[in-house]
Amino acid sequence: MAPPSRCFDNTMNGKTDNGAVPVVVDTQQQSPKVLDPEEFRRQGHQVIDFIADYYGRMGDYPVHPNVTPGFLRSLLPTEAPSRPEPDAFGSALQDVRDLILPGMTHWQSPRHFAHFPASSSTVGALGEALTAGINVIPFTWAASPAATELEMVVVDWLGKALHLPESLLFAGGGGGTLLGTSCEAMLCALVAARDNKLSEIGGNRIGDLVVYCSDQTHFAFCKAARIAGIQREHCREIQTCHENMFALSPTALQAAMKADVDAGLVPLFLCATVGTTQTTAVDPIGELCAVAAPCGVWVHVDAAYAGSALVCPEFRHVIDGAEAVDSFIMNAHKWLLANIDCCAMWVKKPSALVAALGSEPEYILKDAAGVVDYKDWSMALTRRFRALKMWLVLRCYGTDGLRDNIRSDVRMAKAFEDMVKADARFEVMTDRKFALVCFRLRSPQRFGGEKTANELNRALLEEVNAVRSGPYMSSAMVGGIYMLRCAVGSKLTEERHIKDAWEVVQDRASSVLGKMETIYSVHC
Amino acid sequence: MAPPSRCFDNTMNGKTDNGAVPVVVDTQQQSPKVLDPEEFRRQGHQVIDFIADYYGRMGDYPVHPNVTPGFLRSLLPTEAPSRPEPDAFGSALQDVRDLILPGMTHWQSPRHFAHFPASSSTVGALGEALTAGINVIPFTWAASPAATELEMVVVDWLGKALHLPESLLFAGGGGGTLLGTSCEAMLCALVAARDNKLSEIGGNRIGDLVVYCSDQTHFAFCKAARIAGIQREHCREIQTCHENMFALSPTALQAAMKADVDAGLVPLFLCATVGTTQTTAVDPIGELCAVAAPCGVWVHVDAAYAGSALVCPEFRHVIDGAEAVDSFIMNAHKWLLANIDCCAMWVKKPSALVAALGSEPEYILKDAAGVVDYKDWSMALTRRFRALKMWLVLRCYGTDGLRDNIRSDVRMAKAFEDMVKADARFEVMTDRKFALVCFRLRSPQRFGGEKTANELNRALLEEVNAVRSGPYMSSAMVGGIYMLRCAVGSKLTEERHIKDAWEVVQDRASSVLGKMETIYSVHC
Repeated sequence: MAPPSRCFDNTMNGKTDNGAVPVVVDTQQQSPKVLDPEEFRRQGHQVIDFIADYYGRMGDYPVHPNVTPGFLRSLLPTEAPSRPEPDAFGSALQDVRDLILPGMTHWQSPRHFAHFPASSSTVGALGEALTAGINVIPFTWAASPAATELEMVVVDWLGKALHLPESLLFAGGGGGTLLGTSCEAMLCALVAARDNKLSEIGGNRIGDLVVYCSDQTHFAFCKAARIAGIQREHCREIQTCHENMFALSPTALQAAMKADVDAGLVPLFLCATVGTTQTTAVDPIGELCAVAAPCGVWVHVDAAYAGSALVCPEFRHVIDGAEAVDSFIMNAHKWLLANIDCCAMWVKKPSALVAALGSEPEYILKDAAGVVDYKDWSMALTRRFRALKMWLVLRCYGTDGLRDNIRSDVRMAKAFEDMVKADARFEVMTDRKFALVCFRLRSPQRFGGEKTANELNRALLEEVNAVRSGPYMSSAMVGGIYMLRCAVGSKLTEERHIKDAWEVVQDRASSVLGKMETIYSVHC
Repeated sequence: MAPPSRCFDNTMNGKTDNGAVPVVVDTQQQSPKVLDPEEFRRQGHQVIDFIADYYGRMGDYPVHPNVTPGFLRSLLPTEAPSRPEPDAFGSALQDVRDLILPGMTHWQSPRHFAHFPASSSTVGALGEALTAGINVIPFTWAASPAATELEMVVVDWLGKALHLPESLLFAGGGGGTLLGTSCEAMLCALVAARDNKLSEIGGNRIGDLVVYCSDQTHFAFCKAARIAGIQREHCREIQTCHENMFALSPTALQAAMKADVDAGLVPLFLCATVGTTQTTAVDPIGELCAVAAPCGVWVHVDAAYAGSALVCPEFRHVIDGAEAVDSFIMNAHKWLLANIDCCAMWVKKPSALVAALGSEPEYILKDAAGVVDYKDWSMALTRRFRALKMWLVLRCYGTDGLRDNIRSDVRMAKAFEDMVKADARFEVMTDRKFALVCFRLRSPQRFGGEKTANELNRALLEEVNAVRSGPYMSSAMVGGIYMLRCAVGSKLTEERHIKDAWEVVQDRASSVLGKMETIYSVHC
């Protein structure tokens, strides 16, 4: 397929002037004006309208495109243009609308129930835009004082809003930072713990260190451990079970640690999860901390998804005992309206982070005034001014608004769950804790019962996701059981989308059961 | 100092209705509308005007604020509001203008010459805004097919525009990705090299691995090595010298590697720099690769700043021999108009990255169609749709526009350098290669000459930066010599700002020399 005619013609390569209007050029100085305020204003208003229109017609897109690998590459030239075509910006926006958006998975679609949400809000999106426009790199206090200070303020605001223990806040001797991803945050915590432990036991014993998690922990944790130089075989993924709702058992953890200590190894780090990816299981923080403490193990809590729910007091119990944890993260870009990216990390002892990641080894929190150089709290030097966005979100929605947001999603998830429960052909597979419903179609005994259940549900998900204007869901495979995941969280989802989604599931269930019926009646 | 009256009053905490207009609430469903397209449009236009106005009056701000630690925190409440105040968004923007911007270091100021630029362009900033609005997480091809494909297209476009060797492009069997920072990219390359080497020599020999760089390499490299579990004392920072313009000597590298091999250690990784942070020194890539090859050392090129200049053929020679490198990075957010953040990384063997960072160990580049799952190319799972911004920048400015941008800055830097050279009181300290001028005031013999030169220039920089509407510069300390750095690159800088900057430097030089005169005449 040839590129659409409006795509720039690269054959000219700037050798002749084809009448294109290039970048505004000040002919006197021959320096291109790439940051002209009025040009920015004109094009900026175009972009805002473009995004508003996209939100307005979001429901019209299939959530997931029906495309094959290579579809877009075949539509684009193989190199950049030498000169921009006339009205290149307008023309590019048109291509975004006509070529790119139709090939996207629309995470903001009201019918997106597959991944945990990447919640977009007006204020979150515009906070990002503002940050991009201001474009500073606050790697030290001096590199942009207000940016560092706002980050210190906003992580305390956020920590208080989420009912975190005071020990993790600046106000209580700990402190927080805003990073890009929970993967990065995990790695930073792990490296801090590692270097602290190695300073006790000897720097050459990295090969003896062992880290712990459950078989439900996000794979990013074992990946972070490998990046940090922990031996692949020293990442203990402790088995969980359905009876225990896939939570990590403190007894099993204790046994694993004891076995390692007996073998001469050194327990280093526990990654406990509040709201696992597959089923939103909740590891028992307090009990796990009690097991970890005697071994001097750093306890990290990954509340990437469910952390946002802590803004509601009724969810606070899921982190009971968190006073003892060493580090805690949640992704405000997931369920707290903060747009990608914004991972908040708090640590009890910032000095451990700085000792491992500081650029001057002896460097600790600066002077009496207590400002920090955030480059020493993370892997990277370059960092975005995320605090501005987070501050805007907290200020413009308020903690009440953030609570309403969580509760509304939870209410919709419960409505979906109730509909599942009301249809005897289905079963809810795990306790719904937040806004994720894990369910499956029961496989009738005459079709093999449990033996064909996974196959039946795979077929169901495939059919559900193939309905062009239907919901987009995903699956989990836990304890050998395949189940469908319906994660409520898009900020455009309304009750009616939930009802429609359930009707599609019911309809497709009838379809797959009907097909099974045909197969089995032929065989009998 | 009490918070300004327009800051929200938190004492109400939502207990009584004080007439505030909270988030738009659909009373029927009680679900907050946080992504209403028309609300987005209205507030979005406000934000665009806000940013355009900021650019318009950028020159009025002192580049660096005169504030003391804690200045902002004292102005803000200690917790988030429960309910937003009336017109919270407008009111927050007002606080950004009145409280936050005056406390920022303005990286986009036309008088910002301190750090390497974080170049903002109309298209780069709006590309970020668009990305934030669309808000998808393309961690796998399926998670947003067009986003992955556009990234594959755009890294090849960019690589070609920068005249990179074909071996690093998808088109030549290599491939690229867009990450956030060069720190992250370095770490990924290092971990890929490490795991590849350990698979040859045995997984338990991490303690024997040695990495190499020069004493001019960015500290982020040794930090990355530490994160990856390389022993602190196995990071060889090879000394450079003024005579060699602070470039890494292949002979010195060879000697260091030999000594390590003789000691039973294993050379792993070389980080060569094209355009060092302090003086834009250029390590001789081809010769260094020749030295590294016999030891099977992974060669990584950090062209974070100077990589952008490769868009001009006249700079291509600085990476002569790059055909042999294993990985190469440049920050398009530094000098290629792409706003923060956008670090492009290319590797010769993507399979090495995937082997180290893939979530399924055996996983390699997918199927005949050749699409990739970018989660396996980097540390993090969550990633931003940076390709959209980079594509817009390449398309809307074209390679000619990007060249004009570089050449204009280089021309201005040369103009500054010429003015320095024309004043006999000063000397240019290193060959100007790109758009950074390193210079100092000569210390007259009667004031002690070389013995007082550093002190004199420290005083000069302090005085220059204290001029409220003056330039903001930084310093380098290399080979024991303190020098001033004037890095041209803000997209608002014009020739007149360069001339003004130089006049301030001359004026302040007269001042510090005058003070020295007074001191020495009193002493004599």
